[in-house]
Amino acid sequence: MIQFQCDYNEGCAQEILDLLIKTNMEQHVGYGEDAHCEKARQLIRQACESPEADVHFLVGGTQANATVISSVLRPHQGVIAASTGHIAVHETGAIEHGGHKVLALQACNGKITASQIKDCLIAHQQEDGPEHMVQPGMVYISYPTEYGTLYSREELEEISRISHDSQIPLFIDGARLGYGLTSHACDLTLPQLAHLADVFYIGGTKQGALFGEAVVIQQPGLKKDFRYFIKQGGGMLAKGRLLGIQFEALMTNNLYFRLARHANDMAALIREAFQQQGFEEAVPSPTNQLFYILPNDDLKRLEQKFILSPWGHPDAEHTIVRFCTSWATKPENVQALISAIKH
Amino acid sequence: MIQFQCDYNEGCAQEILDLLIKTNMEQHVGYGEDAHCEKARQLIRQACESPEADVHFLVGGTQANATVISSVLRPHQGVIAASTGHIAVHETGAIEHGGHKVLALQACNGKITASQIKDCLIAHQQEDGPEHMVQPGMVYISYPTEYGTLYSREELEEISRISHDSQIPLFIDGARLGYGLTSHACDLTLPQLAHLADVFYIGGTKQGALFGEAVVIQQPGLKKDFRYFIKQGGGMLAKGRLLGIQFEALMTNNLYFRLARHANDMAALIREAFQQQGFEEAVPSPTNQLFYILPNDDLKRLEQKFILSPWGHPDAEHTIVRFCTSWATKPENVQALISAIKH
Amino acid sequence: MIQFQCDYNEGCAQEILDLLIKTNMEQHVGYGEDAHCEKARQLIRQACESPEADVHFLVGGTQANATVISSVLRPHQGVIAASTGHIAVHETGAIEHGGHKVLALQACNGKITASQIKDCLIAHQQEDGPEHMVQPGMVYISYPTEYGTLYSREELEEISRISHDSQIPLFIDGARLGYGLTSHACDLTLPQLAHLADVFYIGGTKQGALFGEAVVIQQPGLKKDFRYFIKQGGGMLAKGRLLGIQFEALMTNNLYFRLARHANDMAALIREAFQQQGFEEAVPSPTNQLFYILPNDDLKRLEQKFILSPWGHPDAEHTIVRFCTSWATKPENVQALISAIKH
Amino acid sequence: MIQFQCDYNEGCAQEILDLLIKTNMEQHVGYGEDAHCEKARQLIRQACESPEADVHFLVGGTQANATVISSVLRPHQGVIAASTGHIAVHETGAIEHGGHKVLALQACNGKITASQIKDCLIAHQQEDGPEHMVQPGMVYISYPTEYGTLYSREELEEISRISHDSQIPLFIDGARLGYGLTSHACDLTLPQLAHLADVFYIGGTKQGALFGEAVVIQQPGLKKDFRYFIKQGGGMLAKGRLLGIQFEALMTNNLYFRLARHANDMAALIREAFQQQGFEEAVPSPTNQLFYILPNDDLKRLEQKFILSPWGHPDAEHTIVRFCTSWATKPENVQALISAIKH
Repeated sequence: MIQFQCDYNEGCAQEILDLLIKTNMEQHVGYGEDAHCEKARQLIRQACESPEADVHFLVGGTQANATVISSVLRPHQGVIAASTGHIAVHETGAIEHGGHKVLALQACNGKITASQIKDCLIAHQQEDGPEHMVQPGMVYISYPTEYGTLYSREELEEISRISHDSQIPLFIDGARLGYGLTSHACDLTLPQLAHLADVFYIGGTKQGALFGEAVVIQQPGLKKDFRYFIKQGGGMLAKGRLLGIQFEALMTNNLYFRLARHANDMAALIREAFQQQGFEEAVPSPTNQLFYILPNDDLKRLEQKFILSPWGHPDAEHTIVRFCTSWATKPENVQALISAIKH
Repeated sequence: MIQFQCDYNEGCAQEILDLLIKTNMEQHVGYGEDAHCEKARQLIRQACESPEADVHFLVGGTQANATVISSVLRPHQGVIAASTGHIAVHETGAIEHGGHKVLALQACNGKITASQIKDCLIAHQQEDGPEHMVQPGMVYISYPTEYGTLYSREELEEISRISHDSQIPLFIDGARLGYGLTSHACDLTLPQLAHLADVFYIGGTKQGALFGEAVVIQQPGLKKDFRYFIKQGGGMLAKGRLLGIQFEALMTNNLYFRLARHANDMAALIREAFQQQGFEEAVPSPTNQLFYILPNDDLKRLEQKFILSPWGHPDAEHTIVRFCTSWATKPENVQALISAIKH
Repeated sequence: MIQFQCDYNEGCAQEILDLLIKTNMEQHVGYGEDAHCEKARQLIRQACESPEADVHFLVGGTQANATVISSVLRPHQGVIAASTGHIAVHETGAIEHGGHKVLALQACNGKITASQIKDCLIAHQQEDGPEHMVQPGMVYISYPTEYGTLYSREELEEISRISHDSQIPLFIDGARLGYGLTSHACDLTLPQLAHLADVFYIGGTKQGALFGEAVVIQQPGLKKDFRYFIKQGGGMLAKGRLLGIQFEALMTNNLYFRLARHANDMAALIREAFQQQGFEEAVPSPTNQLFYILPNDDLKRLEQKFILSPWGHPDAEHTIVRFCTSWATKPENVQALISAIKH
Repeated sequence: MIQFQCDYNEGCAQEILDLLIKTNMEQHVGYGEDAHCEKARQLIRQACESPEADVHFLVGGTQANATVISSVLRPHQGVIAASTGHIAVHETGAIEHGGHKVLALQACNGKITASQIKDCLIAHQQEDGPEHMVQPGMVYISYPTEYGTLYSREELEEISRISHDSQIPLFIDGARLGYGLTSHACDLTLPQLAHLADVFYIGGTKQGALFGEAVVIQQPGLKKDFRYFIKQGGGMLAKGRLLGIQFEALMTNNLYFRLARHANDMAALIREAFQQQGFEEAVPSPTNQLFYILPNDDLKRLEQKFILSPWGHPDAEHTIVRFCTSWATKPENVQALISAIKH
């Protein structure tokens, strides 16, 4: 069976594996204070054109989200997010477990707007007794979103502006950041995104690493004591070197973006095949996740050769199916899928 | 200024005050283990025809909700509620502060349906990876709702059935229970409601007491160690006698229901006046809270004599206004309001 | 049976009851924003000579402690306290439920020292990896302590100094503040204590009120959004007027201190009787709580007429017994106890 | 500089690295439901002679502790642990962040006794108002302890018995389990230990893996919904295969124990050298962590060639120093250290 159900089916990029092998018996201090972590931090600061940023490495996305949010919010504050946002749906209430409400705004294709955020802020600042409601204390968005869609530079700037005008930090979940930044539909650069956010992360797990997310803290007020939060949240890897080594490899010779571009190229081939066959797109995603509406019979047929990810049922006869490519997707597997689509 | 903005503007019913005065210098042990609490518990068990129920007294509604929910749910579980439910909106994230997500269902006039609950349960029990989402562990409804509306007996039975079939406790917030049970539109009794719920409370604060909510635990599995939760949540009143004395008075000679009926009678007069004048009801409430859509000029005029509670703006020229009566509402104040409405 | 087991056996002082009766049918807005609360706040600011202080009213001590601590600490911080402190032992883990470790220092007669606090701070600031331990973020002491003992002015000043030098707020639990300030052993005034603390509270529950603790926030940085924390913690009383009325009465004509002095006077009589009979004091308490070591036979004899509070067993034949007086203790009951002691 | 300061200085054992390389491009489903995880689970069940055990893989120790404890305790319960236990000191309050008090018992060389546990249980079950204190809900011990010491089989059996008699689960932190089980001083086997615990874990991070702890749940009542807790706690690795692969390698051909034995052998050589030179042992550890009291001058001298871990200061002239060996310790480095000790 060929797997297209997610973008974390394989191990890691060869360059990462090579560096892990090469450095395996080096002795290093623990907890992210080794030379590889330090080098990776420098490379990330350069790539983000953010020489003053604090960079911390965490193991996974839910952990990164919960740790960042826990470090930013006070107990009576909540985080504004899309109703389809990862923190709102797929983290088993990790944010609430940390004590905070997710203030979910109705998403459109995974996205929310500056205008929605503004309305939410106003609704929570009513003159008479605002303290009966949670106080919005952060805006969380994903780039790309959980549906593979992208905010335009203008949309991001508007969201950043309303956040900053309200003195509420903007946090961008970049679990698939590379797939977004290398999309044909992307109109901004990593440094530009980096400067619109107060804190964001560069996802490694879904983009060629064994695991790892690099949290970049831009706003000085958010930097204090962050390592305490990592440790408290169970995210401080004893052998922190492993995270440093992986991001060192990813940030060298543009590897991170080369891997991401490959996934987008593979997705483009699949998208083209679906379009040619007249299948309807459920979400107009320009990145490595595709969502198509398939007649159930077609799905059943595809599932004889491929592991896929059903995403919902628009009606009794159809299923929305997610197809993911990744840095590791083999062209021959894509061809096999295209053949099956064309049938 | 005459106040109609809420149902907790005055102190307490004279019968309660009298008993407080009479017992003031009695010596009692603390924390709800005194004779008055014990007597009140017995009276409540009788009124609910629930001889095996555990009865605990808490000071307020948010406290009661947070304590009950904390005692029932495990950390990975959330509570299903109406999107307009008190725990979803107006408790400053107390439930999330306790670690739990409120799974909010789109409410209609403050109510949710058994069918919505069923859909929510199904959506969270998907075969593939249910552990990525919060597990529904409780259903919370209010009777009457925050909009003064009532579930019919049949609706309640359906909700109770789906909850029990799914082994998920049903929790009924009865902050205004008496106003509901004495409404002309009510088709069930206290014992009937008591047996449909796994845990519920009889609200005192808004119904004639200085403060106090009587939590009634029906399901044996929910009784264990509940006093620990009260204490941990800061709800264990040192002079617990005060709660016992108040509920002893409320449960004697049908006082609780007499007080509630008065509020409903007063509301009926106001409702009639609005109807006669052709004002549009925002919510069809048969209890002591009325929601009418007023032209802003009318509101401005009323606010010269009355303190009211604006509830939202359907358009730029109109305001939804809440009018509350209570056990303490004076007929002459109602007449003054009616005159002003008729103008 | 005459009760000496605690200082919350009766209702409230007559002056409070009178004011409650008199104001019962006044209409007031809820949640502590009424005129009585405002007046009580002014009286408290005057009594503390702290015109800039924020004053908030909460229902009980555990609630006040949990709310204040939740509002001050960040998630990775803990609160330094005596090992016998109320928050360390007798609040069912309310502080931990809010996410914070209580950093317990070995108490001596209920007290801790500035030097212990300093050592604790140093131990948690070790150069190598402080983030593996909780960060001390607050100092909590009780005045008087849970054992009735008092810090001298000099001791308090030292604790205050080390706290402020370390930029860690000092929080004084004053559940029995009046009993402390009117003790013969007290060498400081309310305004002096008020200016040594960053936040403290004036206890009402154990000092003549039905319930209530007045939290006084001195440090400007701790004032922001405190009402959110009260609401989230379930401590925002709907009929907030009740708290205002009680503290208005307590702060008028020196009532608070007159009630407290009575308790200390009654305690002095009991202390004298024990001393004359040669009983050994377990703790040298100069306030309203006395701790004596009684042969078990004597205890058994006393318990035929009195409800007392056994506090521990130094050996198989003896019991430490707590005797509490209060604002409500009747001289004839004290005489009865003294007679029984003298036997 | 040669590093002896901890047992996680290097990457991983060659056998693990080989298997990671070999399987790198295999496609697997995520989140620990792949074939390698399943195989590793089977091997662990066999090694523990516990065919019914549930086995889950987590990334690190703090995460494993917090997740297990969160899944077992109810909100009003605390966990009994040694005052020097990892959860009591070195996890930045992760357990309290999850809402639970650590009930710390005075440790002796890192250990607590069944008798201490019993006394603690009795103290918390006092007839009068146990709900004012946290309810003990779990016993946590480490094997070996944080000081390298071991419980004897008899001691463990007593602790297990008192736990089970009190219906309180026993949780054994086995972050260094192999170093304990292969110590010359160990008098029990893995299956024996496995059957004394209700839940425990087999540490990988410090014993040859890149990272990973295998949680083994023995008691049926603790198995339900555990995957929810892993996900909520941020511990559900997307590429769960990595954990499966590592434990598959460790559990094959006795690798886990061979690696551990090597560390103990290296430690024995160092211990012998210290003893011969007459240095005083601070803690009598029979495993891979050694604690010696060094004159500060000797320490300074050693630190010119070695990175060590100072552990405390018995007096101004001496330092307690921890020396760790591991699966990766090179004999030539041990010889260099011994030479330096002998000087």
